[in-house]
Amino acid sequence: MENFSSLGLKIENEDIYLLDQQLLPHEEKWIKCSELPQMVGAIKALKVRGAPLIGIAAAYLIQKYRDKGVSAEEMERVYTELWNSRPTAVNLMNAIDRMKKGENASDLAKEDVELCEKMGRNGAELIEDGDNIITHCNTGGLATVGRGTALGVIQTAWEQGKKIHVYVDETRPLLQGGRLTTYELSKLGIPYTLICDNMAASLMRAGKVQKVFLGADRVALNGDFANKIGTYSLAVLCKHHNIPFYTVAPFTTIDRECLNGDQIEIEQRKDLEVQGVQGSFGEVKWAPDCKTHNPAFDVTPRELLSGIVFDFGVLTKKQLQNGEIKKHLS
Amino acid sequence: MENFSSLGLKIENEDIYLLDQQLLPHEEKWIKCSELPQMVGAIKALKVRGAPLIGIAAAYLIQKYRDKGVSAEEMERVYTELWNSRPTAVNLMNAIDRMKKGENASDLAKEDVELCEKMGRNGAELIEDGDNIITHCNTGGLATVGRGTALGVIQTAWEQGKKIHVYVDETRPLLQGGRLTTYELSKLGIPYTLICDNMAASLMRAGKVQKVFLGADRVALNGDFANKIGTYSLAVLCKHHNIPFYTVAPFTTIDRECLNGDQIEIEQRKDLEVQGVQGSFGEVKWAPDCKTHNPAFDVTPRELLSGIVFDFGVLTKKQLQNGEIKKHLS
Repeated sequence: MENFSSLGLKIENEDIYLLDQQLLPHEEKWIKCSELPQMVGAIKALKVRGAPLIGIAAAYLIQKYRDKGVSAEEMERVYTELWNSRPTAVNLMNAIDRMKKGENASDLAKEDVELCEKMGRNGAELIEDGDNIITHCNTGGLATVGRGTALGVIQTAWEQGKKIHVYVDETRPLLQGGRLTTYELSKLGIPYTLICDNMAASLMRAGKVQKVFLGADRVALNGDFANKIGTYSLAVLCKHHNIPFYTVAPFTTIDRECLNGDQIEIEQRKDLEVQGVQGSFGEVKWAPDCKTHNPAFDVTPRELLSGIVFDFGVLTKKQLQNGEIKKHLS
Repeated sequence: MENFSSLGLKIENEDIYLLDQQLLPHEEKWIKCSELPQMVGAIKALKVRGAPLIGIAAAYLIQKYRDKGVSAEEMERVYTELWNSRPTAVNLMNAIDRMKKGENASDLAKEDVELCEKMGRNGAELIEDGDNIITHCNTGGLATVGRGTALGVIQTAWEQGKKIHVYVDETRPLLQGGRLTTYELSKLGIPYTLICDNMAASLMRAGKVQKVFLGADRVALNGDFANKIGTYSLAVLCKHHNIPFYTVAPFTTIDRECLNGDQIEIEQRKDLEVQGVQGSFGEVKWAPDCKTHNPAFDVTPRELLSGIVFDFGVLTKKQLQNGEIKKHLS
């Protein structure tokens, strides 16, 4: 495997290293994940996260086992365990399928960088000077191996000289916005304001939000999509306030088997995440040992979208309704 | 002053004690607040909270100073400092005005208990067997001296034998739902599920929410109202999903000087509350020292209400639009 490095993934001397995103922003620690148990553990524990990055990381692990020349039986076990490690992120399944067909992990990684650049350029055309943009979760260089999806769009607009400002949803329960998007925007020097998720609506009512850009974990063929819990809430709020709402995704996030959002399986996570917070910053629990509801994702129907920013172009709601996603799949 | 006791306030031997709500649910500690600086400090630090309870606590402090026979000048200082301690909670201003006119704190306290019982009965008529109800922040016996506003309605419906279930919004940033409403519902034995604020929308879309009941910190004469940040977001989501949305408030929460929601001043709080969490459960900070937006409340326009449950009856949206609140003020 060629050496390779991005904000969250490194290949060095045939070993795979992941930046432990659970430790950010307090600590930058790289963990070696060249073996299946370490990689599956890192995916399940969200040490590596972001649909595109998970896909590329899994591809490198498959490459590593392929290069070692393990048995067909062992390869099957690798595919299966990776496949089951994160049920909603379709990039993972897409990456496994492509590796099975003999592609190389480094080609997938290079492709991801290019896809991010294309999404960045396509999406930046939708951003105007002076826009205040809400984003949710983390969709930047920590979620991909390139510059990111929604955050890549924001970065590109900023580099084009557009004076923009970002409202960052903290994104309970795992706080990817408060921990990771703040970290990335600080590094990029893009002005931002951190908010709690329940504050977006009143900002919209006050006319302080011009657009919402966020990512996707899985896009169905009809344009419905799954993304981090809280996304659907923003979509409804945007509709009420007549604010453009875009998701940004590479074609690798499209699930060719999935006709619409009803077919997307939503991962339920443990009570402790809602009863408190845990991370490198410490661990506290404020709620009793009570029942919680903790879906990792929600599904947004295409009706609430202004459009999807893909690497191959922006598809408007109308184009999604006309089934145009399929035309762009080879 | 007669001895008196409720879930969050006690009068014992002429002294005023408040249950420190910042320490709940981990510790039940009563703090003596018989002097102005302690009371103002407790209000500002949210050790005492809930619009009705703040009003009654302030009334008892005024009673205490009046009984001591302090100078008119000193009384003015007491009124002014209390008035300024929490700018959005109108019950505080109403209680101060009524005490100035010579009413007794114990009468205000007894009245609050009765108001809660009346709201409970009026609101419970709107709840059907089997309802799943979302509530926000804390509006129970810890927010009043009676059984509460919205949570009092839920308790009354439960006592009437209606099999209901409550989804509790954790209510970032100060987690009154996760800390206090869970504590009260556990004590009452009412089934509940804790959620993060951004999860309400997808529950609604899945048909798992029949009604929303929450409180108010200030009701304008036209029916617009201010309540804990996140309330307006729920109101918009209810409209989109065609779910009844009620606020519950005693007449003491009506601001007779306030024509509509635009005139309600919103308290902005400090960055640290959004950058992490702090409480008796511990203190962690996950975000960098960044700019935040931290309004304690938001304003919901009457158009989004199904109605307001008052002690004197339920006013529907149409009645609010016809200006009927004024008819019920003496």
